[in-house]
Amino acid sequence: MTENHTSQTQENETLERSVFFISDGTAITAEVLGHAVLSQFPITVTSYTLPFVNSKMRAEEIKTQINAIYLETQLKPLVFYSIISDEVKSIITSSDGFCQDIVQTLVAPLQQEIGLEPKPELHRTHGLSKKNLGQYDARIAAIDYALAHDDGVSLRNLEQAQVIILGVSRCGKTPTSLYLAMQFGIQAANYPFTADDMDNLQLPAALKPFQHKLFGLTISPERLAAIREERRENSRYASLRQCRLELAEVEALFRKNKINYLNTTNYSVEEISTKIIDSMGLKRRMF
Amino acid sequence: MTENHTSQTQENETLERSVFFISDGTAITAEVLGHAVLSQFPITVTSYTLPFVNSKMRAEEIKTQINAIYLETQLKPLVFYSIISDEVKSIITSSDGFCQDIVQTLVAPLQQEIGLEPKPELHRTHGLSKKNLGQYDARIAAIDYALAHDDGVSLRNLEQAQVIILGVSRCGKTPTSLYLAMQFGIQAANYPFTADDMDNLQLPAALKPFQHKLFGLTISPERLAAIREERRENSRYASLRQCRLELAEVEALFRKNKINYLNTTNYSVEEISTKIIDSMGLKRRMF
Repeated sequence: MTENHTSQTQENETLERSVFFISDGTAITAEVLGHAVLSQFPITVTSYTLPFVNSKMRAEEIKTQINAIYLETQLKPLVFYSIISDEVKSIITSSDGFCQDIVQTLVAPLQQEIGLEPKPELHRTHGLSKKNLGQYDARIAAIDYALAHDDGVSLRNLEQAQVIILGVSRCGKTPTSLYLAMQFGIQAANYPFTADDMDNLQLPAALKPFQHKLFGLTISPERLAAIREERRENSRYASLRQCRLELAEVEALFRKNKINYLNTTNYSVEEISTKIIDSMGLKRRMF
Repeated sequence: MTENHTSQTQENETLERSVFFISDGTAITAEVLGHAVLSQFPITVTSYTLPFVNSKMRAEEIKTQINAIYLETQLKPLVFYSIISDEVKSIITSSDGFCQDIVQTLVAPLQQEIGLEPKPELHRTHGLSKKNLGQYDARIAAIDYALAHDDGVSLRNLEQAQVIILGVSRCGKTPTSLYLAMQFGIQAANYPFTADDMDNLQLPAALKPFQHKLFGLTISPERLAAIREERRENSRYASLRQCRLELAEVEALFRKNKINYLNTTNYSVEEISTKIIDSMGLKRRMF
């Protein structure tokens, strides 16, 4: 069990609340959605994420924990849950928590619209089944591909790439390639431009046949210098002057070669990845 | 824009429905939750994921698209959305789709329980902000760490690892290490046992000081052989006999050294990762 303290405000001690994310699966969806919901309230949260809750005994333990917090604080712990088994679920909902079923809340209204009974199965949003094993293997293959084609390590098999990400060192190429593979099963290669390339920067001949797959990343010189400084303190590599020079050269190359590019300074790897998918018209598979 | 066809049943043509996942952010949460909800109905789905919808013009385009599908099929497209701007949101909800707000549906009941007004901001569940930049950098550092300590490449700085994953080649060590880093910011190293180690399999001396950080992965010999066959067809490496031998040796080592281990045959990388977090009592950070 994990206990996390997230301070969403420092205003007032009375605005503190305990929160449980409970699931018969990984609890990743409950956690992500619950955080999105809670971020709208000015409260301080102590959160407990409880995955793989699929026995009555485990549910009873959690109910005891929830009830003890209620007894102590006189405030209902907030519970976001997703559990298929009626027996296990009813134990959680009979606790003193304020319980919301993150999936069923949306299923009930749909039932009327679709005109069909829902058939709750142990759905395992983030699970493996015979049905999705082939897809899962493709996703693992995409991770292998990203690793084999990271940082220009190999320029072979680029015809298998769905996107080839270009940019200077530490602008976000590797995490983006890995996220595209991990979340969407997209085969992404990436290629770095280094300080040595800068004298006469050109698009490498090996990449030219794949012009339509190229996507550039750029970043503010200040943020790049800060990131590089973490890696090699007081180096030429991390100097603002060098960062400025490399970024100016590479951005000029992107423009000259009509390569779409994105400034990553204010974006997370999720945002960069989905913007690339959107911009390149790639298929967004779900796992 | 991406169009996906997911056949959730092959029963009947009339059970087909168009679905939209719409967000002013990455649309990852809308997509994941929407799929979990829809998986409970025996329908065939054509889905459209539309991220970064944050202008009235873009919303009007989407409304036109939704209305056209309704006009053609006489069935309301199902819309799962998360949009903060009231102006943009009202355009979507005034369409002919059956619209559900994935976040606000859970916010409204909470408002009463907490007794505070929600303050919807452009929350960017998967976004970057000044508030979480430090956390984000830690996450990227965890990815760097996983790559630098993949497959026993480096046994230095193992004291910085939160977990060291052990197992034979292709049992899931690399994707698991990367997922732990990407999703949870956990620093995971991994170490492979190879065919050459099998004659006299022992825990490497370099790992012994970190006994409490070790976690083993195993897998069924049949699944391992199938995965290895993809990589090196008809090799000794991929033979069922070799897979059986390696797995038996490594599992014996796990037992002898009292190392917790997990059979990954039927688990996804999300499940393996969250089970490791649970079993090792690691802090589950949210990004």
